[in-house]
Amino acid sequence: MQKLAMLYEGKAKRVYETDQKGVYIVSYKDDATAFNGKKKGSILGKGAINNQVTNHLMQLLSKEGIPTHFVAQLSETETAVKAVRIVPLEVIVRSIAAGSLSERLGLKEGTKLASTVIEFCYKRDDLNDPLVNNSHIKALGLATEQQLELITKYSLKINDILSAYLVEVGIALIDFKLEFGITSEGELVLADEISSDTCRFWDIKTGKKLDKDRFRRDLGDVEEAYHEVMQRLLGRA
Amino acid sequence: MQKLAMLYEGKAKRVYETDQKGVYIVSYKDDATAFNGKKKGSILGKGAINNQVTNHLMQLLSKEGIPTHFVAQLSETETAVKAVRIVPLEVIVRSIAAGSLSERLGLKEGTKLASTVIEFCYKRDDLNDPLVNNSHIKALGLATEQQLELITKYSLKINDILSAYLVEVGIALIDFKLEFGITSEGELVLADEISSDTCRFWDIKTGKKLDKDRFRRDLGDVEEAYHEVMQRLLGRA
Ligand SMILES: Nc1ncnc2c1ncn2[C@@H]1O[C@H](COP(=O)(O)OP(=O)(O)O)[C@@H](O)[C@H]1O
Ligand SMILES: Nc1ncnc2c1ncn2[C@@H]1O[C@H](COP(=O)(O)OP(=O)(O)O)[C@@H](O)[C@H]1O
Ligand SMILES: [Mg+2]
Ligand SMILES: [Mg+2]
Repeated sequence: MQKLAMLYEGKAKRVYETDQKGVYIVSYKDDATAFNGKKKGSILGKGAINNQVTNHLMQLLSKEGIPTHFVAQLSETETAVKAVRIVPLEVIVRSIAAGSLSERLGLKEGTKLASTVIEFCYKRDDLNDPLVNNSHIKALGLATEQQLELITKYSLKINDILSAYLVEVGIALIDFKLEFGITSEGELVLADEISSDTCRFWDIKTGKKLDKDRFRRDLGDVEEAYHEVMQRLLGRA
Repeated sequence: MQKLAMLYEGKAKRVYETDQKGVYIVSYKDDATAFNGKKKGSILGKGAINNQVTNHLMQLLSKEGIPTHFVAQLSETETAVKAVRIVPLEVIVRSIAAGSLSERLGLKEGTKLASTVIEFCYKRDDLNDPLVNNSHIKALGLATEQQLELITKYSLKINDILSAYLVEVGIALIDFKLEFGITSEGELVLADEISSDTCRFWDIKTGKKLDKDRFRRDLGDVEEAYHEVMQRLLGRA
């Protein structure tokens, strides 16, 4: 497969066209940002880790019936994916209160939620990704009602699959962010990534944070935490 | 009816117990606040106007099948209402983008929304009344699923009734905020108020704002605007 023009560069990945119809190449970077780009840095080895962790989890989800954009891993940092039109929503699924939810609703970080919370944020960096509900999504035409229903169904199922899987390697899945896209054939698939950049992972025994909060909050051991997650999931350093 | 102890004093009204079981007295004040109490002032005659406008509209809604807390007007500024446990949600219904919606979603004020937007905000002054969705409401136990369905149904119906009614007096209903409560008999009823404090009213011909935005944004003619609405609705000054 030939890598052609770069289509766009995000905060964590670059996306390239290829000579194969309907296929893009995603290239993961070590760049780290937080607070909508206000904090900037770099996490050594993050690109390779997030690429491999994402692909591992996407293949797991695929086996469980979730359609994903994953096509094939090309190198430590690059993956061929189905080209999609990203639905401009960040889908956040939460089992335990943390981060912005704790702040917004006054819930102490670590509080178990009585039922799963699912949030949609309008993917608009210039607006700080505002929380939207189904009526906003409809009024803005961000997704059809059928797409939204499917996104909700998939997201809750992904939470069940990943939570159960991660418990086996001693990790509690606190919350995570997903993005979905529509392929040229009109199929809704899970896109983007699933990694320590986009999930809150807490060690079940010690409570240690194994995710981007180490970078956001300057907790130290950032590279080690990303490594630890990869090692537990893929069984190698 | 005997007015007994004051139960609570809000930013715009005082609520009193009475000697009659299940009945409170609401007393409207001229006090005006905005931005969650950060801006303070007074609008001469507002208490009397909001009391009478609210009662007029509540009785209209009642006739159209919406259960409300209205019992009887006692004076220009006081009304007997059914005592309720307020559901801690502010329900906002929007036909045209304005205010916080315009800011949050980057929609120019005055943009017609492609479909009605309904928002729930968790009534918590200390948290700045954060927007919540159905999954937050469930996780926090703020309302049952049946209550939420009924609140949604009533709110959209109220929008239809009020919009149609106000057009007849030359007023466009841009958006408004409702509160619901549960009576001692377990009935869900519309409570609180419906006035220029809680609705955006724009003159259809001139576009002139006839609501609290005149106070919030220091547009002048504040008292006149409140008066104008009452006069159009009740046919007297
Ligand atoms: N399969 C895909 N097809 C097209 N775009 C994708 C796909 N998967 C992810 N993207 C998009 O790639 C862009 C780059 O990713 P990233 O660096 O994480 O961006 P961001 O700065 O928005 O977080 C994002 O806009 C993301 O939505
Ligand atoms: N029928 C009712 N029974 C009990 N409380 C009510 C009723 N109607 C309104 N309230 C409550 O009365 C309080 C005072 O009103 P207001 O001054 O508007 O308060 P706020 O400062 O919260 O806006 C509010 O908490 C409101 O929810
Ligand atoms: Mg991203
Ligand atoms: Mg009030």
